[in-house]
Amino acid sequence: MEFKGRDIISIEDFSQQEINHILDVSKTMEPLAKTGSDMLKGKILATLFFEPSTRTRLSFETAMLKLGGNYIGFAEPDITSARKGENLADTVRTVENYADTIVLRHSLEGSAKLAADVAKVPVINGGTGAQEHPTQAFTDLYTMRKEKGKIDGLKVALVGDLRYGRTVHSLAYALALYNVELFLVSPESLRMRKDVLQTIKSKIPVTENANLEATIPKIDVLYVTRIQKERFPDAAEYAKVKGAYKIDLKTLKGAKKDMIILHPLPRVDEIAAEVDATPQAKYFQQVWNGIVVRMTLLSLVLGAVK
Amino acid sequence: MEFKGRDIISIEDFSQQEINHILDVSKTMEPLAKTGSDMLKGKILATLFFEPSTRTRLSFETAMLKLGGNYIGFAEPDITSARKGENLADTVRTVENYADTIVLRHSLEGSAKLAADVAKVPVINGGTGAQEHPTQAFTDLYTMRKEKGKIDGLKVALVGDLRYGRTVHSLAYALALYNVELFLVSPESLRMRKDVLQTIKSKIPVTENANLEATIPKIDVLYVTRIQKERFPDAAEYAKVKGAYKIDLKTLKGAKKDMIILHPLPRVDEIAAEVDATPQAKYFQQVWNGIVVRMTLLSLVLGAVK
Amino acid sequence: MEFKGRDIISIEDFSQQEINHILDVSKTMEPLAKTGSDMLKGKILATLFFEPSTRTRLSFETAMLKLGGNYIGFAEPDITSARKGENLADTVRTVENYADTIVLRHSLEGSAKLAADVAKVPVINGGTGAQEHPTQAFTDLYTMRKEKGKIDGLKVALVGDLRYGRTVHSLAYALALYNVELFLVSPESLRMRKDVLQTIKSKIPVTENANLEATIPKIDVLYVTRIQKERFPDAAEYAKVKGAYKIDLKTLKGAKKDMIILHPLPRVDEIAAEVDATPQAKYFQQVWNGIVVRMTLLSLVLGAVK
Repeated sequence: MEFKGRDIISIEDFSQQEINHILDVSKTMEPLAKTGSDMLKGKILATLFFEPSTRTRLSFETAMLKLGGNYIGFAEPDITSARKGENLADTVRTVENYADTIVLRHSLEGSAKLAADVAKVPVINGGTGAQEHPTQAFTDLYTMRKEKGKIDGLKVALVGDLRYGRTVHSLAYALALYNVELFLVSPESLRMRKDVLQTIKSKIPVTENANLEATIPKIDVLYVTRIQKERFPDAAEYAKVKGAYKIDLKTLKGAKKDMIILHPLPRVDEIAAEVDATPQAKYFQQVWNGIVVRMTLLSLVLGAVK
Repeated sequence: MEFKGRDIISIEDFSQQEINHILDVSKTMEPLAKTGSDMLKGKILATLFFEPSTRTRLSFETAMLKLGGNYIGFAEPDITSARKGENLADTVRTVENYADTIVLRHSLEGSAKLAADVAKVPVINGGTGAQEHPTQAFTDLYTMRKEKGKIDGLKVALVGDLRYGRTVHSLAYALALYNVELFLVSPESLRMRKDVLQTIKSKIPVTENANLEATIPKIDVLYVTRIQKERFPDAAEYAKVKGAYKIDLKTLKGAKKDMIILHPLPRVDEIAAEVDATPQAKYFQQVWNGIVVRMTLLSLVLGAVK
Repeated sequence: MEFKGRDIISIEDFSQQEINHILDVSKTMEPLAKTGSDMLKGKILATLFFEPSTRTRLSFETAMLKLGGNYIGFAEPDITSARKGENLADTVRTVENYADTIVLRHSLEGSAKLAADVAKVPVINGGTGAQEHPTQAFTDLYTMRKEKGKIDGLKVALVGDLRYGRTVHSLAYALALYNVELFLVSPESLRMRKDVLQTIKSKIPVTENANLEATIPKIDVLYVTRIQKERFPDAAEYAKVKGAYKIDLKTLKGAKKDMIILHPLPRVDEIAAEVDATPQAKYFQQVWNGIVVRMTLLSLVLGAVK
């Protein structure tokens, strides 16, 4: 298993054994995330964010600083050469001279793959198109294993926008590598994309179009996603499904005591504020875990750990 | 007096004794501001600027670098999750995972308080609403004491926009803790807010609606503020008062030789360029003092100094 | 030859001997650009970019990090005090308190000179107006000497927008200090500015209005520039010349085997992608050389090397 120099583009590129290794290394990163480290001293991360993001960008930059490295980059496309008409390949071939590794966020499907093909340095997908967000999926898996002690055997419900939400696609692919039972809960217009569905159905039991109320008592993990306005081609359609499947204390009534609630954040109103105080709410711990996992990925691809 | 873990929200939360301590520590920070230090090595500051700012943001980031720490953050709201509909509390609960302390600038009155209530890490108010800018007030006080040797006994004039300018409100509260005589000089529509006025009038002598020409010869500190267009609800009103009370060499004719002129900056045309070369002009030294004071605040709330 | 504290404003301020020294020091920086260094530990660079730029800004920030320093700054004018009406001189007099050196990009001709006149710390021109981009010119010269072993004796063609492109003006001035023969290839409306032309013609042989096809076989360096839309006063004029003088494999047929192709980047479609794989294409190596040269300039003006 060699991670040095490797690109992190799609969760589908990773075997279960490799994912487990990433989760194992993440556990050893926890203390370093608290104390800091000089593991990547002198190394530079470039964060190329062609779409806005608070969480993923700051999470990667924090991870790099905690490893003793530093970062350069941009947080929006308007201040870049893209505005002058430069194509992504040229931007990447430029930035690879500056940085030891690149994190890319871009609205274009396949852009991370393109960047990785071009770049001599490892490229990490920080969310591209509507399909892939692998570092969030690693974070989700790490949170599940940290909180539940294992991934195999879990019953997981994915709730909300399963069509446009890139995190659920990466996560569904990853869960399909484990012995997991999956419940998909979404409005009709936001059902899981066919291609993803076929892949995961061939590997694990999947209940599509599950009823939220009936599902809650059965599950170990409730994974809620935001209905993302910016992913909708049609505003009227958005208005119709917005707020569907909102989680509040009443929704959680039948839930197992040790069920956990995850959310990739940001949330708008899918989870009521009253839920935050419950022991089941783990979405803010997820943020911390995201730093730990990204520290792992950065040190793996830069060869600082094996 | 315990500062570790403390939020810096309003100047009103500080006793005279505490303010004096901050000014005393700042004096010991001066050499470190020149040589640099490793006092906060491994620590991370998050600068969350929902409103544009050059000075306050760069000043805090510089202070953090000079203490051996580092920073993450954003400089405008458009690139953040707020655009996706996330509320401030969620942003704070996210960012507290990344950073050891947070500086917040926000247009909303009370937003720093809200952030502090939510956050586990210390929150520093980097300017919120039209009312509070405590770190600027500490800087102003430090500059007065550094230049005049003391604060007690000073005669201070506040000139310009006393209604919408947040720095003068914080400063007026702070000066009211000392034995200071205050002169308020402003156009009628920009007179000091009633609530601030009542509080300070109950503590120190205040001359409202003072005549600039008559006041200049009496005072030790001339504190000038910008008439801020963005604080005006009405553009016509702005045009009317813009440029009133402009300070030039003629205005300064009757002033004491050792009077000092301060300004929180940026200025537009409240102070003529010809004034910059006078020994009384201390507004650019104020910028340096702002670094020193912010180094103090960061090391205090992070427990690096007592 | 003293560089400590010196401003880098115009290539015209440098003698051939000084330029040679910068290129010599750059050669010694190459290994440090790979391993990193603590040469500027504790030093802070301010990058004040009033115009968008990926390359120049990230290149300087990377250079500073590789020297062990750090950076603060902004990447676009909208988030700065300029929006509040602050003039450039005040911004500079503020930022010089934060930073040990300042890099400025600005649309205004003469703005770097103005900043340097005001600032106590060294100011480096990161591209101002349509006339000057000295650090790009140093990079171009360094690339030529690195690739061809010398500058004297070279035959160089400058192709594309010779009127609005600031890099070609700085480069032409610099080349005129050497024993170089220059070929200028451009559409009629984009011919080299008269003032630049007069200066260089008085020093070296210059063929204006050269035919690209006839010129290619003679030259050692083909320097291509982007037809910059944002430099055109008139959109119709832009459309007319856009794409003129495009370089592809066919264009290169008669070229010397060891001719090199340079471009300050970003490119739009002046150089076809098929050219990238030729051994003559050196424009991405130029990016690396830009880091090395900027490390040199930073350490020279900050007195870390002589």
